[in-house]
Amino acid sequence: MGLTLAQLASRLGCEFDGDAACLISGVASLADATAGDLSFLASPQYRADLASTQASVVVVTKQDRIICSGNVLIAIDPYLTYARAAQLLYPEVVHDGGIHPSAVVDPAAQIDASAWIDALCVIGPDVVVAANAQIGAGCILDRDITIGRDCRLLANVMIHGRASLGERCLIQAGAVIGSDGFGYANDQGKWVKIPQVGGVKLGDDVEVGANTTIDRGALSDTIIENGVILDNQIQIAHNVHIGEQTAIAGCTGVAGSTHIGKRCAIGGHVGIVGHLTIADGVQISAKTFVSQSIDSAGFYSSGTPLESNARWRRNFVRMKQLDEMARRIKTLEKMVYKLSNDV
Amino acid sequence: MGLTLAQLASRLGCEFDGDAACLISGVASLADATAGDLSFLASPQYRADLASTQASVVVVTKQDRIICSGNVLIAIDPYLTYARAAQLLYPEVVHDGGIHPSAVVDPAAQIDASAWIDALCVIGPDVVVAANAQIGAGCILDRDITIGRDCRLLANVMIHGRASLGERCLIQAGAVIGSDGFGYANDQGKWVKIPQVGGVKLGDDVEVGANTTIDRGALSDTIIENGVILDNQIQIAHNVHIGEQTAIAGCTGVAGSTHIGKRCAIGGHVGIVGHLTIADGVQISAKTFVSQSIDSAGFYSSGTPLESNARWRRNFVRMKQLDEMARRIKTLEKMVYKLSNDV
Amino acid sequence: MGLTLAQLASRLGCEFDGDAACLISGVASLADATAGDLSFLASPQYRADLASTQASVVVVTKQDRIICSGNVLIAIDPYLTYARAAQLLYPEVVHDGGIHPSAVVDPAAQIDASAWIDALCVIGPDVVVAANAQIGAGCILDRDITIGRDCRLLANVMIHGRASLGERCLIQAGAVIGSDGFGYANDQGKWVKIPQVGGVKLGDDVEVGANTTIDRGALSDTIIENGVILDNQIQIAHNVHIGEQTAIAGCTGVAGSTHIGKRCAIGGHVGIVGHLTIADGVQISAKTFVSQSIDSAGFYSSGTPLESNARWRRNFVRMKQLDEMARRIKTLEKMVYKLSNDV
Repeated sequence: MGLTLAQLASRLGCEFDGDAACLISGVASLADATAGDLSFLASPQYRADLASTQASVVVVTKQDRIICSGNVLIAIDPYLTYARAAQLLYPEVVHDGGIHPSAVVDPAAQIDASAWIDALCVIGPDVVVAANAQIGAGCILDRDITIGRDCRLLANVMIHGRASLGERCLIQAGAVIGSDGFGYANDQGKWVKIPQVGGVKLGDDVEVGANTTIDRGALSDTIIENGVILDNQIQIAHNVHIGEQTAIAGCTGVAGSTHIGKRCAIGGHVGIVGHLTIADGVQISAKTFVSQSIDSAGFYSSGTPLESNARWRRNFVRMKQLDEMARRIKTLEKMVYKLSNDV
Repeated sequence: MGLTLAQLASRLGCEFDGDAACLISGVASLADATAGDLSFLASPQYRADLASTQASVVVVTKQDRIICSGNVLIAIDPYLTYARAAQLLYPEVVHDGGIHPSAVVDPAAQIDASAWIDALCVIGPDVVVAANAQIGAGCILDRDITIGRDCRLLANVMIHGRASLGERCLIQAGAVIGSDGFGYANDQGKWVKIPQVGGVKLGDDVEVGANTTIDRGALSDTIIENGVILDNQIQIAHNVHIGEQTAIAGCTGVAGSTHIGKRCAIGGHVGIVGHLTIADGVQISAKTFVSQSIDSAGFYSSGTPLESNARWRRNFVRMKQLDEMARRIKTLEKMVYKLSNDV
Repeated sequence: MGLTLAQLASRLGCEFDGDAACLISGVASLADATAGDLSFLASPQYRADLASTQASVVVVTKQDRIICSGNVLIAIDPYLTYARAAQLLYPEVVHDGGIHPSAVVDPAAQIDASAWIDALCVIGPDVVVAANAQIGAGCILDRDITIGRDCRLLANVMIHGRASLGERCLIQAGAVIGSDGFGYANDQGKWVKIPQVGGVKLGDDVEVGANTTIDRGALSDTIIENGVILDNQIQIAHNVHIGEQTAIAGCTGVAGSTHIGKRCAIGGHVGIVGHLTIADGVQISAKTFVSQSIDSAGFYSSGTPLESNARWRRNFVRMKQLDEMARRIKTLEKMVYKLSNDV
C-alpha cells in the first residue's frame, strides 16, 4: 500500500511540487532513502545529502524548495510535517474488538465491545476499558482502573492504585502505573508502612516509556496532565503533579509531591528532590540535580565537566577546598588592596 | 465499614477526646478531608488547616490538643499513629488460599493451602510458598525459591537465583530478584561470563519497589536484612549486603560487594561504587556519588548546584581549572606575604 | 555429578598438580569453600586465605603454585580459567525442544523444533526462533522478531520493533528490546509523535541485564554489536550504536544517536547525551556526565567528591562563584605583579 504525493499533500494540507502520482510507502533519512521513501530536510546540516538522495519525495520549506530537484512537499515546519506524514504511512495496527481466549477477565470488568484485550492479560474487577483501546499481551490491570478511548498499552504493562488514563494514551512495555509510594513512618528504628490510598490520573495523550514507574498518591492523587511525554525508566513518586505538554527524558527521577509546570523540557538522568515547585516553561539539561524550586521559565543546569581521569582527580580534590580557596582569595584581596594603598 | 473513634483508640492504645461513636472510614490530609475521614497534624506548618478541616477526627500531640476543636486521637507521634490507623482502615485484600486455574504450577512446588497464587503465575520446581502468602498475577518464580509467610508479591514479579524471602515481605510490580550479577572475565578482548551461583536472601518485612532489580551473588549470597525498604527502580548488584531497617530511595544503584550498614537513609539517584563499606546510621543526600567507604554515622553529600544554564557554563569551564586556580592562589600568597614583609 | 581434577584440566587445557581423581562439584571463594569446591587465587590480597582454605582445588598462576599446598590447576589467568571451569561445573539447564501448552504462539511464527518456548509466552506472527533457543516463561515476542540459535531469554522479556538477536544472546528478566524511541515534533506547544520505524539489531553473544530497555531506531536501526554486555536498568535510546565487546554497568543511560566504540568500559549511573561519538577503548568511571564526544582511548571522569553535608553545603555555594573566583585571582595576579615591579 502507500499514498501518492497528491494524496499525502491533501491529507496534510500542504502544497507539493512534482509528480502527483508518485507513490510513497515509507520514510527514511535523506542518506538512507530509496525509491518509494519520503524524507525531509529539517536542518541545514543535511543539505549536502539532498543532491544524492534517492528519496521519492522530500519535505522542505518554501525557501529550501529551490535547492531540491525532485518531488517536494512544502511545509512551514518540515520535521512536523514529516511526523504527520509518517503517522499516515505507518498507521498503528488496530485489532478488532474482542478478548483473547487466554486472557483472564473478571466478570465485574467493563470492556467496550470495540476494545481489544490481547493474550494472557489479567483484568480485575471494576476495570473499565473504553472504546477502541488496545490492551497488549500480558498486561495486568489490577482493579478499579479506567482506560480511556483509543489508549494503547504494549506488553506487560502493570496498572494498580485506582489509576485512570484519559484518551489516546500510549504506554510502552513493562511500565508500572499506580505502584505504592515510598511512604513510611518510623517507630523506634523500625519502618511502618503508610498505606498509599491516593490514585493516579493520567490525562489525554499521555505517553509513558518502557519500564517507567508512576506511584499512586499517598492521600490525594498523582497527576500527569494532558500531553505529557515520559521516556523510558523514569520514576515519578507519589503526589507528583506534571503540567501539560511537559517532556521528560529517560532515567530521570522526580521525588514526592513535587509540582512540575506545563511545557517543561527535562533532560535525561535528572534528579528532582521532593516538595519543589518548577515553573511553566522550564528547561533542564541532562543529569542536573534539582535541589530547589525554580520560579521562572528558563534553561537550568548543574553538573561537572568530563575530563581525563588524571586531571579530574586533581580537580576533584580541590572541590573540597573551594570554601577555603574563596576565603584565601578574600584575605589576599584585603592584603593586596592594603599594599596598593601603602605603596 | 469503618471503625469508631473509640475502637480506633482502643486498637492503637491511644487516648481520645470527643464523640466515641464517630465513625471513621478513610484518611485524608487536613485540607482534603471530608466527613468520615481521619487526618493528622504532624507538622506545625499545617496548623492553619486545622480550623477549616472537615476531618471527623484528627491525630494530634497532647500539646496540640488545645488548638483542635473537634474529635481527636492523642499520640506522641501523630504521623506514626496515623500510619497505624491507616493500616487498620485499609486492610490489605487477602485472598483465600488456592491456585488460580490459569496459573502454571510445577508438581514439585510446595504451596501452602492458605497461600494464594493468582492468575497466570508460573511456579517452578522446588518453589516453597508459605502460609498466607499472596502471589500476584503474572509472577514468575523460577525454581528453588522460598517465599515466607504473609509475603505479598504484586504483578509480574520475577524471582530467580535461589532467592529466599522472609516473612511479610512486600514486592511491588515488575521487580526482579535474583537476576545474574554482572560478572565476566576477559579473554583477549572477549567477555567470558562467570556463572553466578550465589543466592539472594531477603529478611523479614523487606519491601522492594516497582521495577527494582536485585542480583544474586556471584559465589556467596546477596543479603538484604530485616526491615530494609527499597523504593522503585533501584539496582542492587551481586553480593551487596544491606543492614536492617536501611531505607533507599528511587533510582539509586549499589555496585557489587558493597556493604551498607543498618538504619542508613540513602536518597534517590545516589550511585555507590563497589567493594565499599558504609557504616550504620549513615544518611546520604539525593544524587550523591559515593566513591569511598564511610566509616562513621553522619550526613554525607556530593553534587553541584542548580544554576541558569548561562551561568553554569561559565562555572563549568572553571571546574577544569580548579587545581590550577589553587596553585595560583598559593603563588599569590607567597608573593603577597613577601611583599608585606618587604614594605 | 561433578568433574575430576584431571577431567577439568583436560577440558580447560591446563596443567594440574595433585590428586587427579579429586572430584569437584562446585565453586566458592577461598574463605567459603568446602570439600568438593574449586576456588581461585586471582589477587595477592587473598593469599592469606590460601593456608586455611578447604577448597579441594585452587586455580593459581605458575608463580603462585609454590605457596599452595593442595591440589592446583595452573593457569596464566586464574580468574579466566575459574570462569571457564564454573561454566563446566554449572551448565545451563537446556530444555528439550517444544512449546509449553500454555504458551500462545501465532501460526505464522517459525519455531525451530529444538527451541523451547516456556509457559505463558506470547509469540506473534513472523517471529523466528532458531535452534536450541530457550524462551523463558512469560516472554512476549511481538511480531517480525528474530531470535538466533542458542539464545536464552529469562522471564517476562518483551521484544518489539522488528528486533533481531544474533546467536547465544542472554537476556535477563524484564528487559525490553524494541520499545519506541522518544521522538516527537512540536506543533504549537503540543507534542506530535514520530512513528518509530527503525529496528534493533543485537549481534552474537550480547548480554542484556534485568529491566534494561533498548529502543528501536527512529528510521534506521539501533545496533548492539557482538559481545556487548549490558548490566541491569540501562537505557539505550534510539539509533545508538555500541561497538563490539563494550561493557556498560547498571543504571547508565545513553541518549539517541550516540555512537560508542568497541571495547569500551562504561561505569554505572553514567549519563551520555545524544549525537556523540565515543572512541574505541574508552573507559568512563561511574556517575560521569558525558556531554561531549571523546576522540581517543583513555580513562575519563566527572563528578564531585563525597563530603560531610555541612562541609559540602559550604563548598556547594562556592561552585556558583567559580567564574568570579577565577576573575578575582586574575585581578590579584595583575595587582601583585605590578606591586612586585613597583617595590
